[in-house]
Parts: sequence; C-alpha cells; structure tokens
Amino acid sequence: MGKKLTKRDEDYSRWYNELVVKADLAENSSVRGCMVIKPYGYAIWEKMQKQLDQMFKDTGHQNAYFPLFVPKSLFEAEEKNAEGFAKECAIVTHYRLKNDTNNPGKLIVDEKAKLEEELIVRPTSEAIIWNTYKNWIQSYRDLPILINQWANVVRWEMRTRLFLRTAEFLWQEGHTAHETKNEAVKEAIQMNDIYAEFAESYMGIPVLKGIKSESERFAGAEETYCIEALMQDGKALQAGTSHFLGQNFAKAFDVKYANKNGDLDYVWATSWGVSTRLMGALIMTHSDDNGLVLPPNLAPVQVVLVPIYRSDEDFDLVCKYLNPVITELKSKGISVLFDKRDTYKPGYKFNEHEIKGVPIRIVAGPKDIENSTLEIFRRDKMEKEIIDIKNISSKVDFLIEDIQKYLFEKAKNFTDANTRKANSYKEFKDLIKNEGGFISAHWDGTRESEEKIKRETKATIRLIPIDGVKEKGNCIYSNKPSNQRVLFAKAY
Amino acid sequence: MGKKLTKRDEDYSRWYNELVVKADLAENSSVRGCMVIKPYGYAIWEKMQKQLDQMFKDTGHQNAYFPLFVPKSLFEAEEKNAEGFAKECAIVTHYRLKNDTNNPGKLIVDEKAKLEEELIVRPTSEAIIWNTYKNWIQSYRDLPILINQWANVVRWEMRTRLFLRTAEFLWQEGHTAHETKNEAVKEAIQMNDIYAEFAESYMGIPVLKGIKSESERFAGAEETYCIEALMQDGKALQAGTSHFLGQNFAKAFDVKYANKNGDLDYVWATSWGVSTRLMGALIMTHSDDNGLVLPPNLAPVQVVLVPIYRSDEDFDLVCKYLNPVITELKSKGISVLFDKRDTYKPGYKFNEHEIKGVPIRIVAGPKDIENSTLEIFRRDKMEKEIIDIKNISSKVDFLIEDIQKYLFEKAKNFTDANTRKANSYKEFKDLIKNEGGFISAHWDGTRESEEKIKRETKATIRLIPIDGVKEKGNCIYSNKPSNQRVLFAKAY
Repeated sequence: MGKKLTKRDEDYSRWYNELVVKADLAENSSVRGCMVIKPYGYAIWEKMQKQLDQMFKDTGHQNAYFPLFVPKSLFEAEEKNAEGFAKECAIVTHYRLKNDTNNPGKLIVDEKAKLEEELIVRPTSEAIIWNTYKNWIQSYRDLPILINQWANVVRWEMRTRLFLRTAEFLWQEGHTAHETKNEAVKEAIQMNDIYAEFAESYMGIPVLKGIKSESERFAGAEETYCIEALMQDGKALQAGTSHFLGQNFAKAFDVKYANKNGDLDYVWATSWGVSTRLMGALIMTHSDDNGLVLPPNLAPVQVVLVPIYRSDEDFDLVCKYLNPVITELKSKGISVLFDKRDTYKPGYKFNEHEIKGVPIRIVAGPKDIENSTLEIFRRDKMEKEIIDIKNISSKVDFLIEDIQKYLFEKAKNFTDANTRKANSYKEFKDLIKNEGGFISAHWDGTRESEEKIKRETKATIRLIPIDGVKEKGNCIYSNKPSNQRVLFAKAY
Repeated sequence: MGKKLTKRDEDYSRWYNELVVKADLAENSSVRGCMVIKPYGYAIWEKMQKQLDQMFKDTGHQNAYFPLFVPKSLFEAEEKNAEGFAKECAIVTHYRLKNDTNNPGKLIVDEKAKLEEELIVRPTSEAIIWNTYKNWIQSYRDLPILINQWANVVRWEMRTRLFLRTAEFLWQEGHTAHETKNEAVKEAIQMNDIYAEFAESYMGIPVLKGIKSESERFAGAEETYCIEALMQDGKALQAGTSHFLGQNFAKAFDVKYANKNGDLDYVWATSWGVSTRLMGALIMTHSDDNGLVLPPNLAPVQVVLVPIYRSDEDFDLVCKYLNPVITELKSKGISVLFDKRDTYKPGYKFNEHEIKGVPIRIVAGPKDIENSTLEIFRRDKMEKEIIDIKNISSKVDFLIEDIQKYLFEKAKNFTDANTRKANSYKEFKDLIKNEGGFISAHWDGTRESEEKIKRETKATIRLIPIDGVKEKGNCIYSNKPSNQRVLFAKAY
C-alpha cells in the first residue's frame, strides 16, 4: 500500500487527499477538476443513494430525468439564479469535429457546426425543469409535483478537491411544485429533516439544522434550509440544502395554475439536493490516522475474514472452519468478504482493510481451530479480542450496531465540545483563531456586519438555528441589538 | 386523455410517437433532440436498471464513475473510434458566461474564458476510461478489471425519436481489461448472453444473437456481438451490443501489463452497453392499439384497483372490501395502486390504466360485495372475468406469470413467423418490400455486396448468427459462394 498516511495533526488537508486515494475511493482524472470515482468509493455512494432514494419515495416523490443541457435563453430566465451560476458553467458551442487537414489523425472543431444558441451544461436544473413544468401544470389537480432526479452536474470551480469540490459531481436534485406557500415551505423543511435524519442515522454524522443568511442563500431561493456538520479540523461542511423558491421560477417561466375557484396563480416551488460531497463529510467525520473509518450502514464490506496458514493443508482446514461462519453472516444480510488472495500476506491484508475502513475483521488460523476461537477486530476503536467461535454471530450483530452508535456518539461529542459561545468580537476572534469549531454569537442581521466578520476572520454564518432559543443580546461586531445567536465557523 | 391513439396499421410511426406521450413515458424537451423521461417511464427504466445491475454484479462487475468530458487529445487517440463519433459530438469550448452589456439581464459567452483544449461530451467512454486504466494496470495481479458505469452520453443525432434515437440518452457501459484475448472474447460473449437473457426473461422480448458485419461494427472494435429484436412493423431493432476491442485501446493509450514471467504485453479489452433505447424496444414489441402493454416484471404498477361507488357510504364499504386484498397482494411484493381519486370517473381511470399498460385491473362495487366477487381484467388480452374474492390472490399470481409468458410467446411467434429465407435477390427484394421481417440469405462476405444491397433495398445485415448452421450457398447479390446465411432486415 505504499508509504504511511500523513497524520491528521501534521497536515489535515494532506491527510484527507492521501486518504481518498489510498482507500481507493477516488482520484483526479485527466480532465481538469473532474474526478474518477473508483469502485470502492462508488459502492459507498450507491449505498447512500439507495437509502436516500427510499426515503424520498416513502415521502411520495418519484424519479424522472431532464436534459443535461440548458439553452442559454432558459438559463438566463431567472436572473438571480443565472447570475449565481454564470461565472462557473461549461458551455457547449459546437456539435461536430472534423479532420485537421494540417495534422493527419488529429481533429479540430468544425466551425460550420456552430450552435445557433449555446447550451449550458446544467449546474443545477431549475431552469430546464420549470420550463417543462409549465406544460404539466394547468390546474390544482396537477399539483403537487414531487419529482427527484439523480444526475451529474457541472460547476466550473477553480480550486477543486476530491469529493468536496469538483467541476463535475453526482447528486440528486428534488424539484417540487405546490399550490400554496405553506405547503412548499413544509416540503422544504421536510426534505431538510430527511437529510438530517439520513446524515445522523445512516452516515453517523451529527448535524445542525437551520436556515442560511441572505448572502449564503441559493441563488434564486427565498429561504435556504441546510444541514451543517463539523469536521475534525474544526471546519464546518454544508452537507445538504433545501430551498424554498417562492414563486421566483414560476414567474420566470410563467407557470400558473387554476385553483378550485378557477382563479389563476403562480405555483410555489422547492428544490433540494445532496451530492457526492457527502463522501467528503463521511470521510472527514470518522476517519483516523490509520485510514478510512466507515459506519457499518454504509460499508461495502462490513466483515472481512482473513485466513492464517502456512501450508495448503492448513488453508483448507481454515476454510472449512470459516465457511459456516461466512454462510451464517451472509444469511443475515451482512456483507462479507473472505479475503483468500494468496498473492498477499496477512499483514498486508490487515493494513489494506484498515485503510479501507472495513468495520470488522475476523482472523482464524490453526491455533484458533484447536481452541475453537476466532480473533475479532473492530476498526473504529482498533481493538481486537479472542472469542469463542460459537458466539461469532451474536458478536458481529452487536458490533455492527455498536460501531454505528459509537461513531455517531464520538462525532456528536466532538461537535458539542467544539460549539462555543462568544460574547464579544475579541472572544470570537480568539476562538476562531485558536479553537475553530462552531461559534454561537449574536449578529445584527445585516449583510454588512456579516461581510466584515468574514473578511476579518474568514468565518461565515453557517446557519441561523430554526428553533433556536430567543435571547436578547448585542451583535459582536456592531453592538446593535440582536434577538438570537447564529452559528459561525470557517467552512469547506 | 384526449383523443384516441392512432392505430398501428394506419401509421405505425405516429402510433409510437403518440403512445410514448399518452402513456406518460417521455416527451421532447426544449433542447433539440433531448428528451424528458417522465416519472412513469423512468420507473420502468429503474426496474430495468435494477435487474441488469444485479446481473452485472452477479458476474463479478463493479460500478464506478468516470468524467462526463473527454479532452480532445484523448478523444482522438484511438483513431477509428474518434472517426466514428467525431461528426456527432457536443463540444465544450468555454467555461464562463458574462453580462451582455448591450442587453441588460441577458448573458453572453465570455470569450476570455476559452478552454485551452476543447472538451468532448462523452459519446462513449472508452477513451477517458482507458486513459485511466493505464495508471491502474501494471501487472497480471491488476487484471481483470471488470467495471460498469451508469451514465448519460451525448451523440448529436440529426433525426431523433423519443427513446429510439436521442441526442442525450441514459445507458450503462461496461469496460473490462483482460490478460488474454481468449478471456476478453469470453467476456464479450458472456455480456451479450446476459443482454439476451435479460431481454427475453425480463422484457419478454425474443432476440437473435450474433455478430455484426465489419461495416456495422462499433468504431474501434474487432468484433461486435449483438442482440436484435423484431418490432411489430417488421423492422429490426438493435437492443444491445458487446464489443471485443482487441488491443486497440491498450495500444492507443499504451496500457501494458507484466505477465507472470515479467514479460510486457498490451491488455485486451471489451466494452458493452444497453441504453434507454430498450424502452423503445419494450414499447414496440408488446403494445397495441389501446396503448402500452407491459410485462409484469417491468410494470411500475402490476395491479391497479378501481372502486365503483355512487355514495360516500358505498365508497367506504368498497374500501373495506378491498383493503384485505391490497394488504395480501402487497405482502407478496406485488406492486399495487389503489386508484381512489374522486376527481375522475371509473371509465376515465380504466382508459388511463389501459393506455399506461397496467397488467392487471381489479374492479369492485356494491354488487361485488353482495356476491363476494371481483372483476379482474388482464391488459395483454383485454379480457375480463368475474371471480370469487377468495381466489384473488392465486389468480393474481397466475396472471402475473401468465401475462409475462404470454407476451414473450406472442412476440416469439411473431418473430418466427417473420423470419424468412430468400434464395435469390428477386425473392429477397420481394420479401423486403412486401413482408419485412428478418430475411435469412447467403452473402459473400464483402463490404461491396452488403453496401449495394443496402442502397437498393434499405436492408442491412443485422447479424451473422454465431452458432449458425453452416450451409453452402451463393450470395444473393453477387452469386459468389457463401458458407452461411446471415440475417438482413430494415432497421431502426
């Protein structure tokens, strides 16, 4: 597996970059800013998709698919949205290559095949989708529309990092249409709650829920709900967003419906999404200096078995000894890998499965056969013990549950311990500089104070708690009155 | 539901176009040649994906994800492949829009943001993938690589039709790397066999398996295996292809591996794919003048229940009567829709579910409660009968199996009845003109005869049977000797 992983406290950023590659999750491609998601990384993403997809369907959503391209005239229809994405979009201008007569075997763009109207590779699909919904919606009978799409999107980011910020990424984007404002707001909140539940229960990532300040809102939204998680380096990561879009897109695309009285009104909208960025959150929340740590719910391999043997005869005996264990675990739906490779030694395998974050490792050799034992290792705590083989099934059940729980609690304790109050700007700056984490502080609600705090400390308002305690105080920056604390942090 | 569907024998092509829209499967978008796959159509595609994905995984393949874009220099590396796709590809040339100072609120391409190297939106991913595999493969230990990806691709087709030929489509593309030629050929054949099994067992579409003639081969392949199905208008449809790529891509991207003796050799490759085009095959194989007909295996809704009632009281009674049926069917994993909508009358619902191809309809009203009966309707044969409610569960089980079987057999009989031999060019031309279908005829193996037959009759060689009976004969066109008949047809 090459040389050791950089330690987190040596260089957190480098640790992350190395880990993603060493754990075989993803790598940079030869296309600037675009990644290759490798099979092991993709298998984790598939598990996330499957669970999220079920949660969306359970709340009445259906999947559909809309075009990759957005004609420029549609793209610019909702001005704020267009403005928000115009500076970072890939633009298709031609539809044909031709032979380069000066360079045999090479191709050049055929200037005769220039598109009349440029096509934008979708950075998000509100425009193309609302232009479609226009034809689907006439009356209240056609509402609500509750649609999700799993897709790739492209945002031409200048500084990219695997999973966290890539020019192309995979995501899901829900786009719903409703009769009333109230119904749309409820939908946006519901989906943000689903993201929070998914993050906590499946990914083991504690999150804070809230709304964004105006300046951090999605371009074109009236309100952006979000979940934010704290990474081990004390920086926050936005893990999912759900937008109440008001009637902005309905107005931009002239989407009206007739209510029961026959009156026409614009439709209310939401959109919501999570992306392969969640992979970055997953990695950074749980992993350690030995490599990836995965919650069992999302581990492509939950249990790996490694046989110890010197002779072929021993190997056969160990296989015979382990086979009933494998059969039993598989019968319970546990994902098991029996690592029989004879091209690698046990130590190499241990290291590989540790760096890839396999939650449970079972090892057996001739001595275990003699003693009716197995060695079992849990990756989260790096602890091993010897157990009686007859207890293996219940032990694995216990560990799968316990590791899932332990990882969440550990992360929760970390987040709690790193959420601090600041009551003055001096205190705030000290905390940002020395401690990091979330800082709960009073803010006067103005874009101006927010902007200045950001410029001076690099900390941004991550969220305004929705059900936050009302508390009178004074803005740490302007000293103007405030009714509620908001959460600041440096962020990814 | 608007006016009636055009009948197949009036205008087959129009029937298809209308059906796709009326059955709520897909529609044209405002992007030239790109479709919107609507929730009902997408649900069918999801069922296909799920089954295929399992079949790929059961044969040792893993999913991964590679970039949407291919830099031009990589795209042109395998010359034949590049030549095959150069004339129909979308090209990204810029990465930023800016405000149009002459038209406030409008955007124009920022000429300062021109890419140094153009990016091709993948029409297929061999180039970007083999450029990646180069770094993954050093020795025989790294082989085989068995990877699949679910993705969107873009081919700038001039004449498009929903599902059958669209500028953007969804597909899966497998890309494998092997030590030996033999192993790669076996893989290509295995995947073609999987496509055939999927088409027949899940989609109820009988297919013929074979290889393509040189001129119909995938650009860059040494051999293309394929499955072909016959549509109701007597035209063939290529439903899946699997390519043995030889060492072409390994040579283009310099991908060598060290064998057990330490000798370096180029790697052998395959690629294989099926796309949303399968939706077109599904629709055209089974559907009738009343709308879509779906095999139960792929039906998003397998059983729809429609209550008949005049009063609210009746409605409650019918619900109470049907609820145990619904619970029982669902408990067996059958996908059930209880169509309770009070905004539509039963007749409207019947028509809607018929046009959408729901395999089984159950109707109950007050009279059924009196008699302990249900009306059950099978969409494939448009037959209804009254049964005792206590037999409903076994009846549905029977119908689900029987409809699946019946649809396949019906299509198989049609294909068999429309596969004819021609022993002279005159006979061939008469058959093509008057009967359509597959025509089995001798061909001399030259590109010249193939081309002339195509020009004169519009029929192409759909496939050369792999395990075809060897039979001496003479080419229908050139009269030169031939050892085997090949299958011609007009095709989609």
